[in-house]
Amino acid sequence: MERLACSRCGFGKPVDIFDPFCPHCGDPLVISLAKKRRRIRKDESMGAARYLDFLPLAKFDPAFSLGEGGSPLQPLTRLAKKFRLPNLYAKNEAVNPTGSFKDRGSVVAVQKAGSLGFKTVGTISTGNMAGSTAAYAAKAGLRSVVFVKEDTSREKILAAAVFGARVVKVRGEYSALFRKSFEVGRNHGIYFANSVDPYRIEGYKVTGFEMFEQLGRRAPDLVFVPVSAGGHLIGLMRGFHDLQEAGYLKKMPRFIGVQAKGCAPVVRAFERGTGRILPFPRPRTVAHAISNPHPPGGNIVLRWIAANGGMMMSVSDRDILRSQRILAEEEGLFCDPASATTLAAVLRLARAKVFSGRERIVLVISGSGLKTLEELDPMSFDIREAGLDGLEAVLSA
Amino acid sequence: MERLACSRCGFGKPVDIFDPFCPHCGDPLVISLAKKRRRIRKDESMGAARYLDFLPLAKFDPAFSLGEGGSPLQPLTRLAKKFRLPNLYAKNEAVNPTGSFKDRGSVVAVQKAGSLGFKTVGTISTGNMAGSTAAYAAKAGLRSVVFVKEDTSREKILAAAVFGARVVKVRGEYSALFRKSFEVGRNHGIYFANSVDPYRIEGYKVTGFEMFEQLGRRAPDLVFVPVSAGGHLIGLMRGFHDLQEAGYLKKMPRFIGVQAKGCAPVVRAFERGTGRILPFPRPRTVAHAISNPHPPGGNIVLRWIAANGGMMMSVSDRDILRSQRILAEEEGLFCDPASATTLAAVLRLARAKVFSGRERIVLVISGSGLKTLEELDPMSFDIREAGLDGLEAVLSA
Repeated sequence: MERLACSRCGFGKPVDIFDPFCPHCGDPLVISLAKKRRRIRKDESMGAARYLDFLPLAKFDPAFSLGEGGSPLQPLTRLAKKFRLPNLYAKNEAVNPTGSFKDRGSVVAVQKAGSLGFKTVGTISTGNMAGSTAAYAAKAGLRSVVFVKEDTSREKILAAAVFGARVVKVRGEYSALFRKSFEVGRNHGIYFANSVDPYRIEGYKVTGFEMFEQLGRRAPDLVFVPVSAGGHLIGLMRGFHDLQEAGYLKKMPRFIGVQAKGCAPVVRAFERGTGRILPFPRPRTVAHAISNPHPPGGNIVLRWIAANGGMMMSVSDRDILRSQRILAEEEGLFCDPASATTLAAVLRLARAKVFSGRERIVLVISGSGLKTLEELDPMSFDIREAGLDGLEAVLSA
Repeated sequence: MERLACSRCGFGKPVDIFDPFCPHCGDPLVISLAKKRRRIRKDESMGAARYLDFLPLAKFDPAFSLGEGGSPLQPLTRLAKKFRLPNLYAKNEAVNPTGSFKDRGSVVAVQKAGSLGFKTVGTISTGNMAGSTAAYAAKAGLRSVVFVKEDTSREKILAAAVFGARVVKVRGEYSALFRKSFEVGRNHGIYFANSVDPYRIEGYKVTGFEMFEQLGRRAPDLVFVPVSAGGHLIGLMRGFHDLQEAGYLKKMPRFIGVQAKGCAPVVRAFERGTGRILPFPRPRTVAHAISNPHPPGGNIVLRWIAANGGMMMSVSDRDILRSQRILAEEEGLFCDPASATTLAAVLRLARAKVFSGRERIVLVISGSGLKTLEELDPMSFDIREAGLDGLEAVLSA
């Protein structure tokens, strides 16, 4: 049976769903699995079942699955030529069942909730995680509760409510709500699978395993990941670390965590070398999915990125929106602004001539642009009107 | 080299992109491939490349691909129990790169456009096909032109324009626009890959091949498909027919084509036994993606369904919206109203005790619910408000 462990101070304890934090340093605890020989299962197609050896699940029950995983590692051939980076790829998590990487974590966390006997799962979310958690709860036959910020858009609320979730718009400070949810969970028997839930993070490892196999059993040299609460990057790093430990891999990829300039608490601490993040005042960015001013996994990200030889970067909203358009217009890949931070970061490093050109670079695309249409500027597109007789004229224009 | 053939009167001619219709009966022509032994390629993962033998492409160039295909065949385990249909599945095409089944066709048609030397591809669409065609054109480095109806929603226009397409809102009758597009295409050298484009239809075969393999190399007994222009159903039937011809399959599945009562031209002709469809007056349904009052492939569908021993059915908007909610709440699958027609049809047949219970039934889910959020009724969901102190009360309610 797995345990919880602090990756900073080594503290360990049995799994406690209602208190997955280190009492000493406050960091989220991660899963610690018993030592054993772990192998990739060649008889399963991509997705969690293939990598079951590496996950804290006794089995993978398809009754909990929506067919997540096996997302394409798309070669960005046109951008590769344009920017002289021949080995540039996008791991497109936007094609998961509810349109974001959150499904990778939800399938593991909700399955765990089911096997532990919970009847209700919950989450706190500004968008993607709400819909994902509610969908997997529905599939599992569990009830779901979703706490969202007061000002969450109608679209994102509907995209969770449709699965039968009870959606609560909560007035109050987001970090306080995060802590409060665990108390509420204990009192009401609800498993709150929040952003840095230890089982959710284990699910993100699978994306790393797939990348490795899709590159012909080689690791990328550089992996660019949008950073919000920190769970996604932590999971991806753990995945490659697992591969290394199992003997599949000699050298870890280097990770570049990317945030928006308008909400960059981890970047700020990384640049100042303070070692601990502080809440980011007045967050304001078009990349709502990563606008988390006080990320619970921030300190882990900071420490692991430093040890990994990677880096944290921030990019402007202007560069984010420009990169979103480049990915759509050149590669047919329409992602949300949060995901586009990864290309913005690559382009900045390319301008600074940081790359040799031989690196295998993967951008982790975390969510679909269809959920953030309101961020597009309609005036910037080629939209015209014509009658049947005017069609030829409008094409010649 | 492939040719075009009329499936009704046997007329054949070389491929003419600008006139893919039978001069005798007006039906859309389909691809006719030279006879040869065709095999499924076991060294390729799912998607078009694995079934290249069955497609009118000399090779499958990944530079044209967005990673479409390999969509899950999701066992609907909870509905199976509820409605005593143990072998009920959803083939979820909504997880394709642009969120609909259109990507299956776009990847083949746009690749063909590229290999034929076209610099621009076009399409006429009320939504999904616009975004799909524009995305694949972008990936291929081709320009794209999209004609949409005047009243197309802002969201659907943006979801195509973002790929750099020229979007033209056209005043005038939709059927006239359909015919006009081929004339415009010839004059301007634009490949209009519309709903029943012969190459697009070939792409839809792949979904059938995957179903067959995902069921353990067995055909379903019944396949439920939403019917709009008819291209999707025609492609799926062709796919299973190909498998039969190649010796993989003894018996074709039976196909049930489903339309909304508010726009059911093919159902009407099927029920009246007239053999030819007529334009459906004043179409009005919540299932916009299949609201085509004069489907160009309608007569083929009518003829093939009759020969297949299948049937056409129509379902009410009320049942469509109810089925959409059931799929979301019970199976975590959020599809558009057009896709939900398939479950509505199954439930109607189940009430009429048509099934033995042993049938392998597949619902073809054609598009994502995220693109039709405006059709949901916000009043019907469990959405509440609370402060931090009121959370426990709102959970007990």
